[in-house]
Order: sequence, then C-alpha cells, then structure tokens
Amino acid sequence: MPSEFLINDPTTRLRQSAAALAPWMVELRRDLHAHPELAFAETRTAGVVKAELARLGIPHRSGIGRTGVLGIIEGGLPGPTLALRADMDALPIQEETGLPFASTVPGQMHACGHDLHTVTLLGAAAMLKELAPQLSGRVVLVFQPAEETLEGAPAMIADGALEGVDMAIGFHNHPDMPVGTFGFVRGPALAASDLFDLELLGKSGHAAHPYAAVDPIVAAAHFVTQAQTVVSREVPPLQPVVVTIGQSVGGTTYNIIPERVHLKGTIRTLHPEARDIAEAALRRLVSGIETGMRVRASLTYRRMISALVNDDRVLDPAVTALRAQFGEALVEEGEPSMGSEDFAAFAERVPAAQLRIGSSAPGRQDRLHNAFYQPDEGCLPVGAEALSRVALELLSRHG
Amino acid sequence: MPSEFLINDPTTRLRQSAAALAPWMVELRRDLHAHPELAFAETRTAGVVKAELARLGIPHRSGIGRTGVLGIIEGGLPGPTLALRADMDALPIQEETGLPFASTVPGQMHACGHDLHTVTLLGAAAMLKELAPQLSGRVVLVFQPAEETLEGAPAMIADGALEGVDMAIGFHNHPDMPVGTFGFVRGPALAASDLFDLELLGKSGHAAHPYAAVDPIVAAAHFVTQAQTVVSREVPPLQPVVVTIGQSVGGTTYNIIPERVHLKGTIRTLHPEARDIAEAALRRLVSGIETGMRVRASLTYRRMISALVNDDRVLDPAVTALRAQFGEALVEEGEPSMGSEDFAAFAERVPAAQLRIGSSAPGRQDRLHNAFYQPDEGCLPVGAEALSRVALELLSRHG
Amino acid sequence: MPSEFLINDPTTRLRQSAAALAPWMVELRRDLHAHPELAFAETRTAGVVKAELARLGIPHRSGIGRTGVLGIIEGGLPGPTLALRADMDALPIQEETGLPFASTVPGQMHACGHDLHTVTLLGAAAMLKELAPQLSGRVVLVFQPAEETLEGAPAMIADGALEGVDMAIGFHNHPDMPVGTFGFVRGPALAASDLFDLELLGKSGHAAHPYAAVDPIVAAAHFVTQAQTVVSREVPPLQPVVVTIGQSVGGTTYNIIPERVHLKGTIRTLHPEARDIAEAALRRLVSGIETGMRVRASLTYRRMISALVNDDRVLDPAVTALRAQFGEALVEEGEPSMGSEDFAAFAERVPAAQLRIGSSAPGRQDRLHNAFYQPDEGCLPVGAEALSRVALELLSRHG
Amino acid sequence: MPSEFLINDPTTRLRQSAAALAPWMVELRRDLHAHPELAFAETRTAGVVKAELARLGIPHRSGIGRTGVLGIIEGGLPGPTLALRADMDALPIQEETGLPFASTVPGQMHACGHDLHTVTLLGAAAMLKELAPQLSGRVVLVFQPAEETLEGAPAMIADGALEGVDMAIGFHNHPDMPVGTFGFVRGPALAASDLFDLELLGKSGHAAHPYAAVDPIVAAAHFVTQAQTVVSREVPPLQPVVVTIGQSVGGTTYNIIPERVHLKGTIRTLHPEARDIAEAALRRLVSGIETGMRVRASLTYRRMISALVNDDRVLDPAVTALRAQFGEALVEEGEPSMGSEDFAAFAERVPAAQLRIGSSAPGRQDRLHNAFYQPDEGCLPVGAEALSRVALELLSRHG
Repeated sequence: MPSEFLINDPTTRLRQSAAALAPWMVELRRDLHAHPELAFAETRTAGVVKAELARLGIPHRSGIGRTGVLGIIEGGLPGPTLALRADMDALPIQEETGLPFASTVPGQMHACGHDLHTVTLLGAAAMLKELAPQLSGRVVLVFQPAEETLEGAPAMIADGALEGVDMAIGFHNHPDMPVGTFGFVRGPALAASDLFDLELLGKSGHAAHPYAAVDPIVAAAHFVTQAQTVVSREVPPLQPVVVTIGQSVGGTTYNIIPERVHLKGTIRTLHPEARDIAEAALRRLVSGIETGMRVRASLTYRRMISALVNDDRVLDPAVTALRAQFGEALVEEGEPSMGSEDFAAFAERVPAAQLRIGSSAPGRQDRLHNAFYQPDEGCLPVGAEALSRVALELLSRHG
Repeated sequence: MPSEFLINDPTTRLRQSAAALAPWMVELRRDLHAHPELAFAETRTAGVVKAELARLGIPHRSGIGRTGVLGIIEGGLPGPTLALRADMDALPIQEETGLPFASTVPGQMHACGHDLHTVTLLGAAAMLKELAPQLSGRVVLVFQPAEETLEGAPAMIADGALEGVDMAIGFHNHPDMPVGTFGFVRGPALAASDLFDLELLGKSGHAAHPYAAVDPIVAAAHFVTQAQTVVSREVPPLQPVVVTIGQSVGGTTYNIIPERVHLKGTIRTLHPEARDIAEAALRRLVSGIETGMRVRASLTYRRMISALVNDDRVLDPAVTALRAQFGEALVEEGEPSMGSEDFAAFAERVPAAQLRIGSSAPGRQDRLHNAFYQPDEGCLPVGAEALSRVALELLSRHG
Repeated sequence: MPSEFLINDPTTRLRQSAAALAPWMVELRRDLHAHPELAFAETRTAGVVKAELARLGIPHRSGIGRTGVLGIIEGGLPGPTLALRADMDALPIQEETGLPFASTVPGQMHACGHDLHTVTLLGAAAMLKELAPQLSGRVVLVFQPAEETLEGAPAMIADGALEGVDMAIGFHNHPDMPVGTFGFVRGPALAASDLFDLELLGKSGHAAHPYAAVDPIVAAAHFVTQAQTVVSREVPPLQPVVVTIGQSVGGTTYNIIPERVHLKGTIRTLHPEARDIAEAALRRLVSGIETGMRVRASLTYRRMISALVNDDRVLDPAVTALRAQFGEALVEEGEPSMGSEDFAAFAERVPAAQLRIGSSAPGRQDRLHNAFYQPDEGCLPVGAEALSRVALELLSRHG
Repeated sequence: MPSEFLINDPTTRLRQSAAALAPWMVELRRDLHAHPELAFAETRTAGVVKAELARLGIPHRSGIGRTGVLGIIEGGLPGPTLALRADMDALPIQEETGLPFASTVPGQMHACGHDLHTVTLLGAAAMLKELAPQLSGRVVLVFQPAEETLEGAPAMIADGALEGVDMAIGFHNHPDMPVGTFGFVRGPALAASDLFDLELLGKSGHAAHPYAAVDPIVAAAHFVTQAQTVVSREVPPLQPVVVTIGQSVGGTTYNIIPERVHLKGTIRTLHPEARDIAEAALRRLVSGIETGMRVRASLTYRRMISALVNDDRVLDPAVTALRAQFGEALVEEGEPSMGSEDFAAFAERVPAAQLRIGSSAPGRQDRLHNAFYQPDEGCLPVGAEALSRVALELLSRHG
C-alpha cells in the first residue's frame, strides 16, 4: 500500500536522527575536504568510507570501478533494491577559501562539493541502517569515483554495481538554492555530453607565400563560423543544444603558415534526436571544409555520457517524500541544465531520479567549480534526512 | 631599314593633315555622339562609317561581325598588313551632360568614348589614304561593334577580319590623361574577364522552422566569405587577381526561407596561371559549400576574354613613333588595369599593342562610364595623327 | 461551485446540437472557402458572419478593427465575460486542391483554415445562444480580420474589443492531429515575432576595382554568418530562439559592385528575456559590421507580436472541459511552436488560452500554408461542440 | 667618364684573382658552416672576419650593431664611398645534409647561406684591397649580424655604419638560379614586413553555458575570415599584399570557453600606399570585431622593415658591370618577392641595390630555410668577382 510506513511518524524520527548525526558528519566532511583526491585516485577517501561503513556494521566491497565502494543495507522485509549514489572525486583547482580545513593538497580542491555528497550518503547509511528491520527491500550505497571525468559511473556499472538494482537516486548540492530547499526536474534534466577532437592538416609554408601553402588557420576559422549553424539552423529550437569549441590551437609564430590546427569541443543536448542531428551536421561541415579549404581533417567524436532523464516512476515518489518531510513550499520544480553528470549512466539502465539539495548559506550566492566555494554545512544533515525519507518512500511504494 | 621613311618630315606633314581634318572630325563625332547605339545595333554608326570610307575612296566590306565594317588601304609598296581597330558601341546610360549634341536616345550614351574612337580611326584613314602610294604594305581599318559586351572582336574575327593581318593596333581614350599625352603598358595591360553564375538550391520553409528547411542565404554568405580566400590565399600575390560577386539575390520576405539564392560574379586576372588557379579554387569552394551546407550548387563559369598582352615587337616601334611625333615626355609607360577589353581577342592571334590616348580637358579629371563624361575633342586630331605615325613606323619597320 | 452545470448532461446535449448544425456549418464553410479574402479585405466574409448572427438573433457590431465583427450573447445569470475568438483572413496562395468549392479568387486561398475557424465560432454561437438563459455571464464572439499579418488583433483591441472582457479563448485547426483530438500547451505556446529590415550601404564601383568601392555584398555575408551567433552563443539554450534572414538582395549584374544590400529577417522567441537578448545582440552585430566593413547600416527593428502565453487559470478549466466532453485520451499536452499568432495580443491583456483542434482526415498528414491543404470538415461540429463546452465550464467556474 | 677603368682588362684580372682565392674561400666557408651562430650571437664568426681582415691589412672596427664588423678599403684616388654588405647569422634549424662540414651546433644551421655571404664579401675584400691604389673612392665592408630577425641592419646603422656612405650594394644567394647566373629586380624588390599581435579578450565560462561567457574563439574565427578582405577588397590588386595569421591560440580543453585568444600575423607589401591601406584596414576590422563580438581587443602593430626598393642610379651601373663581366645572357631581370630583408634599412637611407647570385648546383633545385640546403660552393669566387666588378663600376661612374 503506497505511503504507508511501518515506521511511526518518520518525519520526526528522521529529523531527530539527522540532528544527532550532524556533528559527526561535519567532522567527516572537513576531513575529506582537507584531503581532496582527483578522479580514480580516491584511495584515502574510499578508506574513510570503508572505515565508517565498517563502524556502522554495513557490509561493503571496494575496488568496484577501481576506487569505488559498494555498501549494502538489507531490509528486514522483502522488497526491491534501491541504489543511492554519491560521487567522491575532487577537482584540479587551487583552493582560495582560507578555511581552517581548506585543502592540504596544492592544486586540488573539493570545489564541486563531492565531499558533501560522500558524507551525506554516509549519514543516510547510518539512519537507514538503524531502520533496517522495518525496510522492505535493500539499499545499495554507491560511493562512486571519477564523476568529473564522466568515467566513474560506467566503470562501477562495468564492475556490477547495478546488479539486482531496481531503481536509483542521485543528488547534487546546489549553491544557487538555500540549505533546506530541494529541487527536481521532470524528464531530461542534464545534458548528454559529446567531445570531439578535430585536426585540420594543411601544408606549412612561409607566411609571405600563402599560395605555396595550405593555410589551416583560415580553414579552422571557416569551420568555427560554420559550426554555429548546427545550433542556429539544424537542430529544432525546442531541443536545446550547445556546440562549443573550447580550444583552437595552431601555429608558433608570425612568419610561418603552420601545418595543422587542433580544435577541441563539446556538444551538449537534452534529446537523442538533437544529439544525432548535431553530430551528423558537425561531421558534414568538417567534410565540406576539407573539400573547400584543401585541408585534410581528422575528426574523433566521442559520446561521453547520455542525457540524464529522470523517470517519473522514481521521481514522483521521491518528490512526494521530500514534500512530506520538508513541506510543499521547499521542494520546487526547476529547469534542466546543459551541464552533464555521469549518474546518467545509471539512469539509462534503471529507473532513476536526480535530486537537487540546496547548499548555500543564507544571503550567499555561490558557484560550483570555483576556488572560493563555501557551501553551508547545514546541508549535510538535511541531505541525509532527505535521502533516508526518499528511500523509505521508494521501498515502501514499490514493495 | 628602321625608321627610314619615304615621306619627308612625317612629323610636320601629319600635324598639318590632322589640323586640316579637325573640323570634319569634330562634326562627325558630334553626330555619332547624338545617336548612340548599343552592342550589335550599330547600324546607323556603321552607315556613317561606310559613307565616309566611300567618300575617301577606301574600299570596304560591312556585315563583318554582324554590324562591323572593314576598310582596306593598299600601300604602293610591298609590305605587311597592319590592322587599326576602333570600337563603335555605346552604353545603356542616360546622358546628363546637357551638351547641345547630347544623346538623343533615352537611356543610351557614348559614355566610354567609342564615338571618339570611330572618328579617330576615320581621321587616320583619311591621312593614310593620302599617303598610300608611299606605304609599304596594307592597312586594314577595323570598325568593331559590341566591345562593351566583349562579343564584337570574336565576332569580327570569326568573320575573317584577321585574315592576312600581321599585326594590330588598338587604342582607348583616357580621361585621366590630358589631351596630347599618350600612354602604354608593357606585357599584360588589361585583365582577362571570366563571368560566373552560381545558383545555390536549398529547401524552402517557414522562417520559424529552419531545421525543416535548408537555408541557401546562410550557404551563400559562407560562400561569399570563403571566396575572398581565392585572392588572399591561393593566387600568387605578384599575379593580380580580383574576385567580385556583383549580385547576390535570394528570398522575397521576412518569414520564408527561400528555395534558392542566385549569385553573379567576375574574376579578373592578368596571367593565365592566376586565371587557372582562381577558377579551380572557385569551383572547389562551391563544391565544399555544397557538401558542408547541404545546398545543391549549379555553377556556370564562362571565360569571356583573355588578358590583353602587348607584344614588344609591335609596342616598341609604336612607342618610338609616338615619341618621335610628340616628344619623349608626352608618352609615358603606365600600369596595367584590371579592366578588360575585347581587343585582347585580336592580340591573342597576331602581335598587337593597345595605346592610351589622353582625352581630358585641361584641369579636368573625368571618369569613363559616367553620365557626365565630357572628353576634350582635341583628342580627335591628335589621335588620328598618332595612329597614322604609328602605322607608318610599323609598316616601314616590318617592311 | 466548480463544474456544476445548470444544464443537465451537457455532453450529450452539445453532441446532439453539433450534429444537428453540421450540414449548415459545412455549407457555410464551403461558401467562405470559395471566396477567400486577404487581410483587412474580409468584407464579404464579415457580411456572411453578420447575416448569420442576425439570423441567430445575436446582437453584433461590425467595423471593429476595420473589417472585424463582434457579437454578444448575454447569459441569463450574472457572471464573467468570456471572449471566443476566430480569425477570418485568407492567404496569397494559388489553390491547387481541385475541390468543387475551391477558391474562385486567383492567387488567394484559405490555406490556413481560417474559413474553418469562422464557421466553428458561428456554430458555437448557435449552440451557446440556445443555452443563453442558463449561462452565468456573457460570451463575446470575436470575428477577427488580418491574423496573417499580425495586425487584426491589435486593431480590434484598439477599437474596444476587449472592453469588459475577463478572459479569452482562441483556437487553431491542426492538420498534424486527427479530427476529434485536441491539444494544448502550458505557458509559452507560440513565439514572439519580431521583424527587421537591414540596409547595408556601401559604395558602388566597377567590379574590377574593389579598392575604389565599398562592397556591401561581402559586408552582408559577414553579417549573415555572424547573426548565427545570436542563437548559438548569446541566448540561453533553454530559451528557444530562431533568427532567420529570409531575404538578402543586392546588385544587378556581374561587373558592378552595388551600392547597397537589403536584408529582411525575423526573430522568434518564447521568453521575454531571450527576445531582449536577441534584439540587443543583433543591433550590436550590425554596429560591428558597420565599423569593420565600412558600410553604413540602417536597421529597422519591429516587435510585431509577443509570445502567446497560456494562462493556467483559463487553460486548466478549458482542458478539464475538453476531457469531460471528449475523453481523457483525446486531449493531449503538446510542445510550443516557434510560429506566431496575434491572439497573443489578447493574451497579453486578459487571461487566455489557445486550443488546438485536430483537423486531418484519417490517414492523412497535411501542412498549413500549402496549396493542397484539405482539412477534414468533421472538425467543424467537433470544434463548435468543444468551444461551447469550454465556454460553459469557464463561465460556470468563474461565475 | 663612365665605364672607363684605370685597370686594364678588369674582366680577366678579376676572373684570375677569383680563381686564385677560391680554395681559401671554400675552406673559410666550411669553417663558418660548421659553426653557425644565431642573431646577435655571431661572436666566433665576427672573430673569423676580423682575423681575415687583419691578415689582408684592412682596417676594421667591431661591435658595430653589437656583433657587426666594419672594414674600410681606402682607394688611391678621390671618389665616393660604397658600402658592400653581407649578413652573418644562422637559423634555428637542425641540419640534415650529412655533409662532412655540417653544423656542429645542434638545432642551428646556415640554411639561408649567410656563411656564403660572409665569405663572398671577404673574397671581394681581398680582390679590392689589391686594386686599392687605382680605386676612386672608398669601399666600406659591412659584416652584419641578425638579418633573420630584421634587427641587424637597424642596429649597425644606429651605430654609424652608414656615416659618409654614398651608396650600397647588398646581395643574396639564390638556389633557384644556377651558379654563374645573376638576377636583379627594378624598383620594389622585397616586401615591407609588419608584424602584429592581437589578443581578443572574452569572458571565460563553462562550455555548456555560452550565454554566460563571451567566446573569444568564435570572435577570432570571424576576425580571421574578415582579415582576408584586406587583400581581396581593400588594397589595389596591382599592389601585391599578403596578410597571414601564422598563429592563433586559445583555450585548453573541451569544456571551458577560454578567456582569450592570441593571434600573431604579418602583413607584406611592396608599396607604401598598400602598407598604409592594409594597416588601417586591419585596425578597423579589429575594432569592428570588438564592437560586434563583445571582446576587448589589444592590438600591437609593428612596422619591422620597409620594402627594399632598388635605386636605378645604383642598379643600372651594377647590372652593366655584371653584364660586362659575365655576359648579357647570364644577368636576368626577375620578379619581386614578398619575402623581406633588412638591407631595406640601408636602401631607405642611401641609394642602393640588391643583387641575386645563383647558387644551385647544376640540375639541382634547392630551397632556402631548409634542413637539406646544399648550395654549390662555385658561387663563392663568382660572387666575389661580381661584387668587385660592381664596386669598380660604381666608384668609377660616380667618381
């Protein structure tokens, strides 16, 4: 029967648990924050996770997706399996916050808040472990590496992280929303990300004699101006798309027409149709530049991650749970973003939803991936409370 | 023996003849000026020419190259055959000079001075006819139609105008030079002219739904920007080239992506190598636009006329003659022009040279192809004198 | 009290009325179809409307917005005023259907189905007039001219068509949906349409001497390629935008660099922010082209019509009514379109909603604005039934 | 009295001297070739020059223009002062010839033949020193550093190298001409070289959110496509011009819109008017890109060296001398090149001419600035003979 809990008054019980766990969560997070680790190098972090899971009596396996950790909370009643996923990796950014627990690793920082995510999931683990006897089903705790490179989720899946899993919940801290508020998006929520490398090979020569060379810088310029038409003319305007060339590098000096120009770019889309159109158009434009501008082109096009599409079968109960726990007004529908997230790899395989957890201090507007990022740690207990309530609802619903 | 004349003191004799002929030439020229005729419609003009040749006792044939006239002055001594060529057609311009003898034909005007040319050649004919007994060889008087469309010279040649001709002299009035001065250019003097028509066929559609159409206006824009590279990157910089797109027309209104865009353009070159490079590059760019921008292109490329290349074997004696007649200082070497002239068709077949005859009134800077063009009629007797002296020199040299 | 009708079983009653009216509606529609009239020339059409309203005993005024007609059905009970709006004008398209009642006016055709709209509203008028005693409030019947030019709605509003009106319903036939189905869009449904005229003034000259001219064709090409960046770089990708240049015309022939190029285009947006960004970006690009390419630019930018934003307060009851009348499955939420519609002028002033009425014959996919358009006339009674039920619901709700 | 020599039969005498000096010249050249030195680092080379001048009894000063050397041969008769100039620096190229006397310095090579130049001038010095008593005037031997960076000539001039000098002769080996042949160009012979650095400063941001950034890569692409119009539309086609962008570098990776793009380029012209037009056009285009594409541009434009314009007053006697010494057929007029040479700095200040000395082995077509360059050493004695004869002629003429 939907929404009927074996637990009496889960709202109050979870609120109290979260409050009790808060000091431990803050301490843990400051430790992780001080010791950031880049993609697939999260060994210390994984060690902390394993130690805490062991302390909580939660069985777990490590080395899943290289540095990932998988914990399992078996419920006392039969039911489905829900994965809760947090990511653990940091960014190659030099921290500038000046905090007492700022990064001790030069050039590395938890500037995307994955330290918050790891600890939020540990908090939820503690709360759900306590409620295990009343749980209908099983919770799989997914501590994932290498989200920033979009490689961690596929790696964990390849190592079996989704075996037996029926549904999944991901989440991200949002510094554009105050602590205590939540957000969600219906359908496509985060963009598919494709990367391309394009080398345009001309013929080197002296700058004074262009007719004896083939100028790849001029060819690259025409390619870049034409690439804008993928967005402006080819993809339907109701299907958001971004084509960005992030790097264009050719030549060494004033007087030499270089041999080649190297371009790197990304295409972001929310719909598979737009993705196909954009890739085909880009390939066609490259081919036209080759013909017209005499260069030889070498294009490597990689589909890194799909769009993250939230499934109403998971999203609706999750939103219901959040609203029940925190009140209708604090849980708002939002807009998709052209950013990407490898939780999409989970959502391609099982019904899933990604939640947004407000993380800004009152009166503060912060941005992710920024050397001064200071989320409000109040989001830690609130996040654990949220994940726990969502898990209770999803297991009970689908039980 | 070079420069030895049977005529005593040709300088004085020609000067006097020219002075005597001047009133008749001015009257004739005003008559032609008042009755301009467009390319291949020069029937009245040809009639005037025939009447004057008859009056001078010069045998002639008409209907050569449709409305062209060919006169022949047989010299009394054996020698080569020299063609002197004048063009007769007017332009579709509404005259604005307000002269008493201004054009009586609405929308038509001798704005390029071909009326001067026709009469200058008649004047030279009168002078050379008188000297015929002493001439070594033969002078062919070529009164050509349709220079403005570059069709008259090929048409006259096709009708045999160059049969038996050993060398040719052409000339043009120059309003950037004062009356009494002359100019010449070594080697390539006027450009080859190629014309192209390019139709870019897209797919029509509503302006609000570009993805369902193929936009030929955007394709045409990329073609036009790329076409600049023919000049800037492909043709050697020491080989002058111009690529101009004179017309680009597509679409009817705000809200409809049109089916097609039509472009018209010209390529001007002085060297055959540059001409070949430019044509090949343009064809290649069109093909690249087709591939890249999804349009179907239909390109018609026509080589209208070659570069006019002066031959030193004709030019050197001609310059010598001019300098002997008018003084060293009044005959200057000039620069080539990217304009074109179908006298090039003669110069492709026989050694030839094109002379420049100053036609501006003192203190006046005029431009050809302009509704206010008022050359100084003083160029008529001077021109006849110049052509006659050049003819004497060339026949005597090569005799 | 919502959804409580004084009318017993409105579903059946309206169904029966519609069936009874069908033959009259078909006949009327064929008459209008055979006599299409362009924007602000709908005098015969307005005459038919007036005659039918008179016949139905519905008081009306004509000459509202030049050729518009306004009818009023007073309900027997107090309540709000609802406007139902239909458009009446035809298109400058030569009909190719070969139907017996095909257009008798050469080059004009009801290719957008406004003949259907006019008759659908007349049908609803007949049905609502019959129910007038039980109606809580008033229905204003708006027969609007000149929708295709986006001028009719503003003209009628200027003449007072919305005086005293509390809410409005518009509708359009949809040949991509079968007869008997309905559609709607939440929020922004149709795009704002802005039009611009851009003249780029260079300096004319001979094609062979570009340095002595300023080439507006090259300047226009650079403008067109840059205009793509408005969409690709400046407007947020989640805010759909289209920038189309529908016309670009310059030059007359191969050999002359023209004085000017004239461009016409449109910008379509769904959000006011995107509209502002796009207009500002376009103006800035024009200014940059002026500076860089030496042309003088003259830009006329006109905001023709705003985005049509459906108001949930009107849309929700309308959808409820349609589902009650036709069944849940036949009334689907759809996607916005970048097309525009001047019903937006009504929706800017009063809460309003625009409904989509399926008009395709079974197994047929048709397109509007097309010389072969043949909607299924079955949409006429269904449409009248739909409008009537929606009117009943809205008046009862807001009563 | 022109062309009258005090020396009996200079042709034979110089031929014999050159033959006698050949083994010493070859040995010297191989030594210099094995020990190349880059611009302003020619200390060993300058040492060799000084030692040989000392051995020949020619007074000299070093440290003129940092590493330059100036020698003076006083003639026995009064007359003008003629500078003969050779350049000494090598290139940062790794030699690949495999010759026994190949470069011993990794990454440095005499790939432009300045080793030949230095020794050719030493050879001429030896010959002219012997003839000194009969010379009318003075020969200044200019051993110049840093030609490749266009800095050596200005540096030597700043240190007084042209004080009292009336005229100058420069020369360069030409591997496209066989040993024993010579070339010259009338008027502008080598191009002016201007360099520019352009930084386009946008606003960095995430690749997925272009609207929140200002993309300098797209701005740079539009700049590069527009820069082609400097050549194609703005400079008169009879005034050769090259605009090359040799470097365009921006961005580091796929996912970040970079802050800035840096471009480096060069403009080459033969005429001052073209130079002014091109610079002004480039500046204007940059300003238009700033306005239109929202970037801030920082442009540094440096006029490095003027066109090298040969002066007929020096060139004509030099050509006469070469033809007298080597025969009419072996001294040909050639075309200008868009390459540059800092001998132009001398030619701006005193009447000067630059000669071309054929340096290719029979049946071999070589290119300068190439790791495999192997000139024929036969050019050494021929070059010395040529310079000597030219010096005799110029001093005698202007004496």
